[in-house]
Amino acid sequence: MDISKWKRKNLLGIEELTTEEILKILEVAKFFKKTLGKNSQGKSHLKGKRIVNLFMEPSTRTRIAFEIAAKSLHADVISVAEQSSSLTKGETLRDTAMNIQALGADAIVIRHSSPGSPLFLSRLVDVPIINAGDGAHEHPSQALLDLYTLRERLGSLNGKKITILGDILFSRVARSNFWTLTKMGAEVTFAGPSTLVPKQFETMGAKVCHNLRNALKDADAVMLLRIQHERQSSSHFPSLSEYTNIFGLNKDRKKWLKKEALILHPGPVNRGVELDSELTDSSQSVILEQVENGIAVRMAILYLCTNFVSL
Amino acid sequence: MDISKWKRKNLLGIEELTTEEILKILEVAKFFKKTLGKNSQGKSHLKGKRIVNLFMEPSTRTRIAFEIAAKSLHADVISVAEQSSSLTKGETLRDTAMNIQALGADAIVIRHSSPGSPLFLSRLVDVPIINAGDGAHEHPSQALLDLYTLRERLGSLNGKKITILGDILFSRVARSNFWTLTKMGAEVTFAGPSTLVPKQFETMGAKVCHNLRNALKDADAVMLLRIQHERQSSSHFPSLSEYTNIFGLNKDRKKWLKKEALILHPGPVNRGVELDSELTDSSQSVILEQVENGIAVRMAILYLCTNFVSL
Amino acid sequence: MDISKWKRKNLLGIEELTTEEILKILEVAKFFKKTLGKNSQGKSHLKGKRIVNLFMEPSTRTRIAFEIAAKSLHADVISVAEQSSSLTKGETLRDTAMNIQALGADAIVIRHSSPGSPLFLSRLVDVPIINAGDGAHEHPSQALLDLYTLRERLGSLNGKKITILGDILFSRVARSNFWTLTKMGAEVTFAGPSTLVPKQFETMGAKVCHNLRNALKDADAVMLLRIQHERQSSSHFPSLSEYTNIFGLNKDRKKWLKKEALILHPGPVNRGVELDSELTDSSQSVILEQVENGIAVRMAILYLCTNFVSL
Repeated sequence: MDISKWKRKNLLGIEELTTEEILKILEVAKFFKKTLGKNSQGKSHLKGKRIVNLFMEPSTRTRIAFEIAAKSLHADVISVAEQSSSLTKGETLRDTAMNIQALGADAIVIRHSSPGSPLFLSRLVDVPIINAGDGAHEHPSQALLDLYTLRERLGSLNGKKITILGDILFSRVARSNFWTLTKMGAEVTFAGPSTLVPKQFETMGAKVCHNLRNALKDADAVMLLRIQHERQSSSHFPSLSEYTNIFGLNKDRKKWLKKEALILHPGPVNRGVELDSELTDSSQSVILEQVENGIAVRMAILYLCTNFVSL
Repeated sequence: MDISKWKRKNLLGIEELTTEEILKILEVAKFFKKTLGKNSQGKSHLKGKRIVNLFMEPSTRTRIAFEIAAKSLHADVISVAEQSSSLTKGETLRDTAMNIQALGADAIVIRHSSPGSPLFLSRLVDVPIINAGDGAHEHPSQALLDLYTLRERLGSLNGKKITILGDILFSRVARSNFWTLTKMGAEVTFAGPSTLVPKQFETMGAKVCHNLRNALKDADAVMLLRIQHERQSSSHFPSLSEYTNIFGLNKDRKKWLKKEALILHPGPVNRGVELDSELTDSSQSVILEQVENGIAVRMAILYLCTNFVSL
Repeated sequence: MDISKWKRKNLLGIEELTTEEILKILEVAKFFKKTLGKNSQGKSHLKGKRIVNLFMEPSTRTRIAFEIAAKSLHADVISVAEQSSSLTKGETLRDTAMNIQALGADAIVIRHSSPGSPLFLSRLVDVPIINAGDGAHEHPSQALLDLYTLRERLGSLNGKKITILGDILFSRVARSNFWTLTKMGAEVTFAGPSTLVPKQFETMGAKVCHNLRNALKDADAVMLLRIQHERQSSSHFPSLSEYTNIFGLNKDRKKWLKKEALILHPGPVNRGVELDSELTDSSQSVILEQVENGIAVRMAILYLCTNFVSL
């Protein structure tokens, strides 16, 4: 595993990564995946390093996955959640980050509701900044673990057809996946109601489709997105059940998919809304494989970003 | 310490344990208790294991005791509290647990307000599930540490008389203790106001007593339960001070106890409500010994459940 | 590094420390500071020890600094925050501390809004109690890291003039710094509006000054305090902008300072209130050095207090 040419300190998004960089992350992840599992004591690649998790939005799997990834490499993990931090005393994000750096952090993993906040921090501090989701901008570690999972199942993605279905407009997962998938040569279709999937996405290079049957029929994999009912304003679609009626994936509509098509979801699933409970647990679903691969992929991200070669 | 015959993966409650299993947990706890204390660096029996603490209700001692127990065996501990988890986004408990398993947990310690939720999870996931208190059902690690403490002080419990006093109706601690104590041959009396200690408990095999003096006079130990004023509805007794007047244990009523009778309480104590401050700190009180023994007992539980022999 | 004569178990405040004790803490901190930094795996001076962080008020840097300090010495750290603890069930602070001791803690680091609560606990439990800020009383680790930073920059403080500016009346930082600085031979001026800096402070031995220009002109260092707008009642000054107009330190007023005078702030800074953004980030500001030195100073505190020699 040669990482001597890795030059990127921050993982802010997928858009700016080269294909070589993406493949290198997957290669390192594959190496680490073999070290996980029963009776393993992990690897000590990050022994003595301090990883700070700065999570400004609720999260189970991303926060825990980064924590487990760091601990599996024997790093120390410090968690800062908004509710118990000085941010409640009105400190700026900038000062919190500068302080975390002064406290000796070797990397900061940040989730924040404002798009661009990881980029903003990366210009202020010297330690690597890893974006764990910034508003509707990007969620790079999610897209990388999705890619890892797809390649494990499908091999090369060149020429493959991937449909991303749901609330594209507000989804950082859709954006990051668009970049990984197209860089790997796949053809991406954004699907959902026209209010959530405006035609403008075609200018990015995606296909846009407002008819579920058409969106599913040729897909090698379909990625569902969570309908974020906590953020839902009534203007985008009339009601949740209306959405489910027209775009929810269920047993009947599964017939529109190719037999071997994969079903992905970044979680947490709203069972019975965007995806029916039976399909969530079906053999086509790779949802839990995604979660599992998230550990190895994040080990790779942490290891590479804390060992970049400066020019 | 031979654990080669341990076959139980989950600790869901005491009711289903055999006497042999209970004694094995205590034997392993005794072994680990000797490894604790000054200048000890613990034991590495769980090195490389990941224990996930999933606490859906507030807790100081149980959560910390499991955390310290796991760390004393060199396991990694990941804490998930409801307030910062995806459960706030409407994820089901089932999906949270499936995800925690996919993230590589080696055991899940769960506290939840719904009776039966640990059992429910144990049917869905492959990793050991350890019940840290489920509604009014069971709190097995508490009963095991109570038993450990009683046996350290009293030796065999065969034929001993133990009174459990307070809000029996809503108490998981009372239920779990009933099972450990009767399996060890002790005679259990449930005492308190008739609204909180209905006659029906006699069908379980317990004595029921609504007179404090009678409940105390022959007891070798009395276990007090916390009056849960945060859950108190006015229908069970008129007021806290009414309860204290009739059933609170204080200096005067201590005379009704045998001189050497032990006083136990699972904590947190409402000083001056169910137990007077002076008695809480008296030499008959073993409340802090219970807390201390909780570490060794939980080390035993974690070690056994993650090393069960499948059939 | 000879610590064989260290006899103090608790760090409750600076007032009771001897000059020798203060110098010993700084000497040990200097030793540990050298062990920090890139590619260091820390020191194992506290391997196998359990440090419990009991934080009853929000904090980023102090809580994290103690956590990193403990982990850098290979201790286990257990965090208890008020919101998830049994304190929400009405348990007394005393019982929480007694329980934490029974759980096997080797030291308790406590932040609490009530002055004297660390002293109160130190009389109840046997494990070392370290005050991480108690109401308006003391914040000893903050004053020690301030002192460490000043001495690194200025050498001996004998005869040096230090101005502490802001809300002195409610500040534990001002009190603790007054004690370290005067014990080191410095001359301390308390400055700010007369409502926040009453003349009575002169009886402690401080100078009191209500004119900013006079307070700044001879100072070798100026320590700014946070204006705690979350605690602000209207009676102490008319408005925040009024305070800033008269006592805020900005680019223009910097001219009133000596060229080489240092600017300190315990953080979090209200940029534009007590200190202007440009000065916060200027070369005279040692604010981030303070944060960085906080790790080594707290390593020294934890190491010394858990290794005191009892008489």
